[in-house]
Amino acid sequence: MAVIYILERDIINIMDDVIPVITENDVKALTERIRKAVEDTGLKGVVLGLSGGIDSAVVAKLCADAVGPENVMCVFMPSRVTPADDYRITTDLCARWGTEYRILDVQLAVDSLSAILATSTDTPLDRGNIAARCRMVVLFNLAKKNNKVVMGATNESEFRMGYFTKFGDGAYDISPMSGLYKTHVRQIARILGIPDEIIKRPPTAGLWAGQTDEGEMGITYDDLDPVLYRMSKGASDEEISARTGVPTEKVASVREKVAKSEHKRIPPICP
Amino acid sequence: MAVIYILERDIINIMDDVIPVITENDVKALTERIRKAVEDTGLKGVVLGLSGGIDSAVVAKLCADAVGPENVMCVFMPSRVTPADDYRITTDLCARWGTEYRILDVQLAVDSLSAILATSTDTPLDRGNIAARCRMVVLFNLAKKNNKVVMGATNESEFRMGYFTKFGDGAYDISPMSGLYKTHVRQIARILGIPDEIIKRPPTAGLWAGQTDEGEMGITYDDLDPVLYRMSKGASDEEISARTGVPTEKVASVREKVAKSEHKRIPPICP
Repeated sequence: MAVIYILERDIINIMDDVIPVITENDVKALTERIRKAVEDTGLKGVVLGLSGGIDSAVVAKLCADAVGPENVMCVFMPSRVTPADDYRITTDLCARWGTEYRILDVQLAVDSLSAILATSTDTPLDRGNIAARCRMVVLFNLAKKNNKVVMGATNESEFRMGYFTKFGDGAYDISPMSGLYKTHVRQIARILGIPDEIIKRPPTAGLWAGQTDEGEMGITYDDLDPVLYRMSKGASDEEISARTGVPTEKVASVREKVAKSEHKRIPPICP
Repeated sequence: MAVIYILERDIINIMDDVIPVITENDVKALTERIRKAVEDTGLKGVVLGLSGGIDSAVVAKLCADAVGPENVMCVFMPSRVTPADDYRITTDLCARWGTEYRILDVQLAVDSLSAILATSTDTPLDRGNIAARCRMVVLFNLAKKNNKVVMGATNESEFRMGYFTKFGDGAYDISPMSGLYKTHVRQIARILGIPDEIIKRPPTAGLWAGQTDEGEMGITYDDLDPVLYRMSKGASDEEISARTGVPTEKVASVREKVAKSEHKRIPPICP
């Protein structure tokens, strides 16, 4: 009879190996926690930026289910690089769900701030950060005037990679996607019946034409999420590479991005 | 022989009765902690909004002493309601200290955002919040482009009362005035040789003409700080009123403002 020794370390690895799958019951529980979180603020409903991408669509639908579509204000804030599809997709979603839909054009404000801050070395990211922050100004203004809370749509993958604008799309009162990787967002989208067209669009922050998350981060979410998940469990680059098949150098580069963006996740330093 | 019983409670009250006074050595220690905090970020110098008021003047001078004036970028961002004195005062300070001085006009961006968000019930505060957030956009843009950290100027009195714009003047990388009441800021200003004209100006957020901190908060800093200080030590409204002479109702109103602004000080809720 063969005796199999399993070290404690191995058990942890086996248990932690795969990102947990989101079930319909998990979505129900999350919806209820969102309802409770909004209720606890004492405010009436939510406001959020709806872009035409999967993350904000999932947040909008979760909120519609949580607090009722009549208490959900979706704000579409296009820029010059916004594809025409985004108008149609966001309009259709809000019409289908019965949420409020507003279009607010921040382009003039973005242009004005970009102009006073222009230098010869400006990058698309500089302008993109300005746009993301102008959208924040809009959402918090509407929230205050309408007694609503601002919902964020940053998922755990973006959050860990620092793939958000601090005080821009990274500014919100409630963060329902916190702890949920992009993989989870896609699972939730399917459970919620988000249209396939939205689920299958290449993820983009939409800050400039041709921008994609995966192009900028240098890794697909299908590779990134298992790496980040194992990293959060304390695995080494080599262990992660062995279990995921992602080359060690790529894993190391993810770890570096996580470390370098730490300043975006911490509260202000108080010397 | 008389025996005096002192209850532990009384000792605490006596010890905690008066806000500690800032000494020259405290200022030296704070300057060194600022130097260290900036150094730890790995970035080169600081950027801050200089308004012509005491708080930002103190922060600018502390930073000039901490990291050298050549590494301090002071940004003056006037609005339509900015008094002419502010131009002169901020120019003079930067010239005297040898820090960089920039004027950046956010008015067009504020106008543009105010226009798309205009409603018939808009208050000066709505517009003021937009201005404070546009200034944040400017500071973080300059910080990123120049490898600098954004210094905040929110003191403990403002912070506790929620007297700041979340993601506006309340957004910064380093908060050197954290834990220091307005009373302390005035003491530090005298130690640093900030001109009397600045120390004696009525404190204002400068978001609309005639705005003053004390008018808006309904209490002077001379009354507010001892109240907040004792509150932080756990004293009741009645105890505070008895020790400070501030009427109990006013103490209760301060406590309410502190409680109501809690949402401005906490990280996002993650349901």
